[in-house]
Amino acid sequence: MIVNDYYSEVNHGPYQLQDIGDLVLEEGGTIRACQLAFATYGKLNEAKDNAILITTWYSGTSKIMADVYVGPGRALDPAKYHIVIVNQIGNGLSSSPHNTAGPGGMARFPKVRIGDDVQAQHRLLTEHLGIERLALVTGGSMGAQQTYEWAVRFPDMVQRAAPIAGTARNTDHDFLYAETLNEAIWSDPGWRGGWYRSGADVAAGLRRQARLWAVMGWSTEFFKQEVWRGLGFSSLEDFTVNFMEGYFLPMDPNDLLCLAWKWQRGDVSRHTGGDLAAALGRIKAKTFVMPIDEDMFFPPRDCAAEQALIPNSELRVINSLGGHLALFGIEQAYKDQVDRHLAALLATPV
Amino acid sequence: MIVNDYYSEVNHGPYQLQDIGDLVLEEGGTIRACQLAFATYGKLNEAKDNAILITTWYSGTSKIMADVYVGPGRALDPAKYHIVIVNQIGNGLSSSPHNTAGPGGMARFPKVRIGDDVQAQHRLLTEHLGIERLALVTGGSMGAQQTYEWAVRFPDMVQRAAPIAGTARNTDHDFLYAETLNEAIWSDPGWRGGWYRSGADVAAGLRRQARLWAVMGWSTEFFKQEVWRGLGFSSLEDFTVNFMEGYFLPMDPNDLLCLAWKWQRGDVSRHTGGDLAAALGRIKAKTFVMPIDEDMFFPPRDCAAEQALIPNSELRVINSLGGHLALFGIEQAYKDQVDRHLAALLATPV
Repeated sequence: MIVNDYYSEVNHGPYQLQDIGDLVLEEGGTIRACQLAFATYGKLNEAKDNAILITTWYSGTSKIMADVYVGPGRALDPAKYHIVIVNQIGNGLSSSPHNTAGPGGMARFPKVRIGDDVQAQHRLLTEHLGIERLALVTGGSMGAQQTYEWAVRFPDMVQRAAPIAGTARNTDHDFLYAETLNEAIWSDPGWRGGWYRSGADVAAGLRRQARLWAVMGWSTEFFKQEVWRGLGFSSLEDFTVNFMEGYFLPMDPNDLLCLAWKWQRGDVSRHTGGDLAAALGRIKAKTFVMPIDEDMFFPPRDCAAEQALIPNSELRVINSLGGHLALFGIEQAYKDQVDRHLAALLATPV
Repeated sequence: MIVNDYYSEVNHGPYQLQDIGDLVLEEGGTIRACQLAFATYGKLNEAKDNAILITTWYSGTSKIMADVYVGPGRALDPAKYHIVIVNQIGNGLSSSPHNTAGPGGMARFPKVRIGDDVQAQHRLLTEHLGIERLALVTGGSMGAQQTYEWAVRFPDMVQRAAPIAGTARNTDHDFLYAETLNEAIWSDPGWRGGWYRSGADVAAGLRRQARLWAVMGWSTEFFKQEVWRGLGFSSLEDFTVNFMEGYFLPMDPNDLLCLAWKWQRGDVSRHTGGDLAAALGRIKAKTFVMPIDEDMFFPPRDCAAEQALIPNSELRVINSLGGHLALFGIEQAYKDQVDRHLAALLATPV
């Protein structure tokens, strides 16, 4: 367990914590008194048919999802919907390596899978928040993995699904990329096998990870057109240091490793003995598969191949020079496209 | 200076060495008694109009260029052409950090630019090989950078140019990517600021670099379709260890850093005060710009934008799931396309 003020309501609030009890994990471990951090917007109506679940991505928390995807007049409008944003396990707000007391914290935090998150979220929603049906599940990147897992695992509960910039079964290329992110941390002598005294001891590794994200997270055209200037940065180095490194530096290395391990192994076909078509064929939700055209590691063709296996689905490609990290919502045009697709999806009768 | 048997005729021969004298560099250093390693195929005809220069890429030597691009019945046929393949400075065969005696070797090897290579090659060709005119200059990646530099710097000497999978002015995205390769080495404690006793001391860093190449060097579809199986590998890990790591492990870290520094700063507009259009406008060579459609870091649109600035040029896109490393010639279809384009270029009167 380690003190890290980054993971607090000051930076990521408001959110609530719910103890959902012991969570026995697919890989055999147990998270005792598992805490889920979540934020809600709007109210559950009497018919209990207006609940929306939003999931979180690698390094992300409920706050960025609320800031970028939720708001009055938006597709995800708290005036119409009861929106629940759940922080995934390992993201630093919910139970995570850095905030779990020994002996099972830090480097000994158990291995968590996307399926474990969805089971935990299901417990939160059904046992604590009185939600039995979801009008929509949506999320980006690892949040898309959770969205797919929800739709496959609980097909009768999920009425609509919108996985953004992510896949149902992680690709080998993604596995390799995520591994380079891990290696950036592992190779820092300050990491000490996960037993550092402070995340700051691993600053060099976190900085390297940030630079790997710069290369793959945005698009080549993002740099060609110097889109970063519009974000208030004066040079390429200014952007990579003060945006990319600044973003990752305060994070906990073990938390990031926990998330990456989960990301690398996301695979809904675990439910069907490896048969992806069979797993995606189970989905009853009306599904919009929403890749980003310039995404370097979740390219639209990978998402399209999965969409083709989902019965009641459409491919809705988002155009953005941001690439994968368009997810951050740096462009109004990105948010407008997301809203247009989500509004159309929510308007579809089920 | 360090002993490294990898850089020998056993692995990279046959080649010859030529001392071209002291080479004063653009950045102010001098390579004393600069050695260029080169290989020739075919004979210079009496008219001296059949000379072709082939340049080398990051980590590559004359051998792979000969193996993949030259041969009887190929576009670059030694029966018709006098083909000279020159190893770039820093590649381990020509003067390089690892083979230069102190005090100016290893970490103190001077900074070299693409322009220095082209000056050195010009000296070799004109003063030692009796070549005054080049029917064609071609090369891939950093070899494309040298090709562009040749065409801009010596417009009256270069009749045809075929830069493959590379750019005339390096992009910011490429700079960032190359920097992550450098950081893989720099972050290895065994590197010791460049004063390691053996490249093997930097094995962990070289392995990380190899994995970064796996992610960006091939295409996402290369992994999706498991193209590596056709190369004789049994799993993703088998491929990354025994192909990618196996390729980089025997190399000299300082040599790679020397090459990357040069790659990051390749820019023909240095001749024209930063005006790329003016620099490319100088080219008199009939030029085929040949990007690879799946290239993750020299995307066709970057190459097309440069091609549009070259007076007598065409864009000839090569299709390959290999991505950038299709350059290695793992597919016959790639070689067939290259041959078709180069044959058409060589058949064009100038």
